[in-house]
Amino acid sequence: MILLNCDAGESFGSWKMGLDEAIMPYVDMANFACGFHAGDPVIMEKSIQLALKHGVIIGAHPAYPDLVGFGRRSMACSLEEVEAMVIYQLGALQGFITANQATLSYVKPHGGLYNDMMKDIRIFEAVAKAVARFNSNLKLMILSKRDTHKEEAIAKSFGLELLYEVFADRAYDDEGFLVPRSQKGAVIHDVQAVIARLKLLQKEGVLETISGKKIALRADTMCVHGDNEEAVALVETLRKSM
Amino acid sequence: MILLNCDAGESFGSWKMGLDEAIMPYVDMANFACGFHAGDPVIMEKSIQLALKHGVIIGAHPAYPDLVGFGRRSMACSLEEVEAMVIYQLGALQGFITANQATLSYVKPHGGLYNDMMKDIRIFEAVAKAVARFNSNLKLMILSKRDTHKEEAIAKSFGLELLYEVFADRAYDDEGFLVPRSQKGAVIHDVQAVIARLKLLQKEGVLETISGKKIALRADTMCVHGDNEEAVALVETLRKSM
Amino acid sequence: MILLNCDAGESFGSWKMGLDEAIMPYVDMANFACGFHAGDPVIMEKSIQLALKHGVIIGAHPAYPDLVGFGRRSMACSLEEVEAMVIYQLGALQGFITANQATLSYVKPHGGLYNDMMKDIRIFEAVAKAVARFNSNLKLMILSKRDTHKEEAIAKSFGLELLYEVFADRAYDDEGFLVPRSQKGAVIHDVQAVIARLKLLQKEGVLETISGKKIALRADTMCVHGDNEEAVALVETLRKSM
Amino acid sequence: MILLNCDAGESFGSWKMGLDEAIMPYVDMANFACGFHAGDPVIMEKSIQLALKHGVIIGAHPAYPDLVGFGRRSMACSLEEVEAMVIYQLGALQGFITANQATLSYVKPHGGLYNDMMKDIRIFEAVAKAVARFNSNLKLMILSKRDTHKEEAIAKSFGLELLYEVFADRAYDDEGFLVPRSQKGAVIHDVQAVIARLKLLQKEGVLETISGKKIALRADTMCVHGDNEEAVALVETLRKSM
Repeated sequence: MILLNCDAGESFGSWKMGLDEAIMPYVDMANFACGFHAGDPVIMEKSIQLALKHGVIIGAHPAYPDLVGFGRRSMACSLEEVEAMVIYQLGALQGFITANQATLSYVKPHGGLYNDMMKDIRIFEAVAKAVARFNSNLKLMILSKRDTHKEEAIAKSFGLELLYEVFADRAYDDEGFLVPRSQKGAVIHDVQAVIARLKLLQKEGVLETISGKKIALRADTMCVHGDNEEAVALVETLRKSM
Repeated sequence: MILLNCDAGESFGSWKMGLDEAIMPYVDMANFACGFHAGDPVIMEKSIQLALKHGVIIGAHPAYPDLVGFGRRSMACSLEEVEAMVIYQLGALQGFITANQATLSYVKPHGGLYNDMMKDIRIFEAVAKAVARFNSNLKLMILSKRDTHKEEAIAKSFGLELLYEVFADRAYDDEGFLVPRSQKGAVIHDVQAVIARLKLLQKEGVLETISGKKIALRADTMCVHGDNEEAVALVETLRKSM
Repeated sequence: MILLNCDAGESFGSWKMGLDEAIMPYVDMANFACGFHAGDPVIMEKSIQLALKHGVIIGAHPAYPDLVGFGRRSMACSLEEVEAMVIYQLGALQGFITANQATLSYVKPHGGLYNDMMKDIRIFEAVAKAVARFNSNLKLMILSKRDTHKEEAIAKSFGLELLYEVFADRAYDDEGFLVPRSQKGAVIHDVQAVIARLKLLQKEGVLETISGKKIALRADTMCVHGDNEEAVALVETLRKSM
Repeated sequence: MILLNCDAGESFGSWKMGLDEAIMPYVDMANFACGFHAGDPVIMEKSIQLALKHGVIIGAHPAYPDLVGFGRRSMACSLEEVEAMVIYQLGALQGFITANQATLSYVKPHGGLYNDMMKDIRIFEAVAKAVARFNSNLKLMILSKRDTHKEEAIAKSFGLELLYEVFADRAYDDEGFLVPRSQKGAVIHDVQAVIARLKLLQKEGVLETISGKKIALRADTMCVHGDNEEAVALVETLRKSM
């Protein structure tokens, strides 16, 4: 069973982002911004209440401290800074989870931090350490790829369980890496094709690469988006097909 | 027994503030900044470790979101915003407390938020509600004054215990309010006079006002400062006299 | 001739706000955010280019430093802080104006700062002083009201010209103050009524108050909004009627 | 003649940094923070007045938007973002310069932005373009190195003049690059040795590398620091020897 996860709680002050209310009925897990790239305290409070209303599994979505860059820009933070900023954000979100008698289940780093931890195992280790020190019952979501033995070893050493995320609407190369968006065919726009890929992953645990080869890829969850009505409609179709 | 409390963890990034290491041996309780007026994740981590090393009682020091104003400026926040910003900051500090197996004991709002909650009972109620929703075992520190029955009633309704703070180095008027700093005699600079006032408060629960009258004032804790070497020396003298 | 002014450039990073491209053809003046309540450098650059494209008169829209509160919350800043924050923001916007060979014509403080300067003449004086020190050819926009002789005197002492703003879609009381939004009839939703009021102001310089009385009110410009398609349509209708 | 330049105006709100008043008498040029890594409007106002008092040449010190990291961390900003953030900061500082009838003479990017522009010629180009669009009479300070023909070509295309900065207290390798701080001998602590190096640079335009070889290095200015009393004393000695 591949669960659908989406980012949420990414409004900030007077600025709105994402159709959180519309997407919630169709996703299993929601990654809530923690104030560093998006989300402010009032929004975080409402987000947790929205998640409770829809019975969605709650995840924390910590990021680099970069509001204007929406946490998408890589920042050359020290490992000590990465570890501390993740603890800070997990704690802050946990505040609203505690106040609302909800449960935090997992952590999915956002944007630049997510990319950086998948490129640099030391950053991954700093994130994993932060999560484990905060609450080792939390799962840590990472990008599925062919070889994750280093990430597995680190997670195991901290007593953490990993969640593997795939992008069914993105093309993969034969090594199990995402085809860069700049390349033709990188994004799969046809919903039926995405559904077919998702089903193949669910049934056989394999994904067809851009060259036509089939590779095994662990897939616990698939990333979807609730940015606009079109995106929500796509997720609704996806959900109904599952 | 009147406990000494001081603000701590108020550095930010490359900017240092306060001689935290020097003051810790002389205080009972430390109010740690939570990132909104001061304190960043790395500093918060180190602060909790410093508190543990010295066995100091750990308090949260939430504030208005105003780094450049150091949280001293009153901000016309809604009650919903006040409640949520307190939960956010308590959670963030709790992150480091959890990660370091420490214990959070109380909450002392900072600067503008502290002043505003003592002037506007609705703001006090929003703060108290936030604390209670986060953890009703936490105590909430307020400024001692002659009449606190409204604050007591609200705290009781949330199941919270209050801690009363006095300023032994500040003159009080006959109504039990602090004499404004702009007025002559508002700040008592003579350490021996401060010690005498503190002892009188401890033994008899009374304080001599600026007019010479003695008024009863509940005093659980006294605010001291570790801003510079002179301030630390004063606290050391105070501590040794107690 | 009453000119239409609207706030613009109020997006921030990935967050969008306002239909700037849609509203520009219908307004005479645009008040551009300067980074403290909204607007980031990239947005400010594009905003000035948009203003140039449409030949709109360019104004600066400085605010309190409060992104999460969108500059709407009153902040107890010192007069020195107000003066300096206005100079900073005027300079920042001027950077893009200079880089694009445009011209800055006026200043309209935003939200909380605008309200505070209309309530506290010392804040008005700090704002006026900042504008004059930066460029005394800039005009300063204020809320039109019955008695503005204090503001006039201060502006004159700094060699500044004032621009008087009215809200044709808001009810006024007999003293020339805006009827609070909480009161019934405070906002006039009927476009034709707004147009009629605007025409009366243009022709006779008077406005009908909520009690039916006619009062004289200086009106150089009227505030309109480009928040959504409905708001833009209203301004289009207004423009065509003028 | 090699001019001494130092960073200044790097306090923020209640946090102090650098002994600006003490160092001013001994330097020729001061690089003033513009609010993104340090410096707030009130501090920027006072900084410009301090520079005027001491007749110091005023430079802008723009940085990445990273208060908590003090602008030291590399951030993966787009070229459009770099260009706009430099214009914003130049404009903001110019606000105080205009208000105080002072003159802005040059630009020295700070920390991470300085390092990044010296590593990536596209970032250098974005910075140079921003400076030229704002005011092509400003000079742009860069790190002197053996081969600067690319930087020269870009500066020339924008009509900008470059200022070459050396670090007389840092060892250089034979290629004219700074020896990394992690390497032994990277920092020269002996003031007399620094003075000797500075004099050699002034007279013969050469610098002795860590291997003992002499290389030619263009040197318009040398970076000094006013962080603490020891640093100020060193600059005083340096100044008196020149």
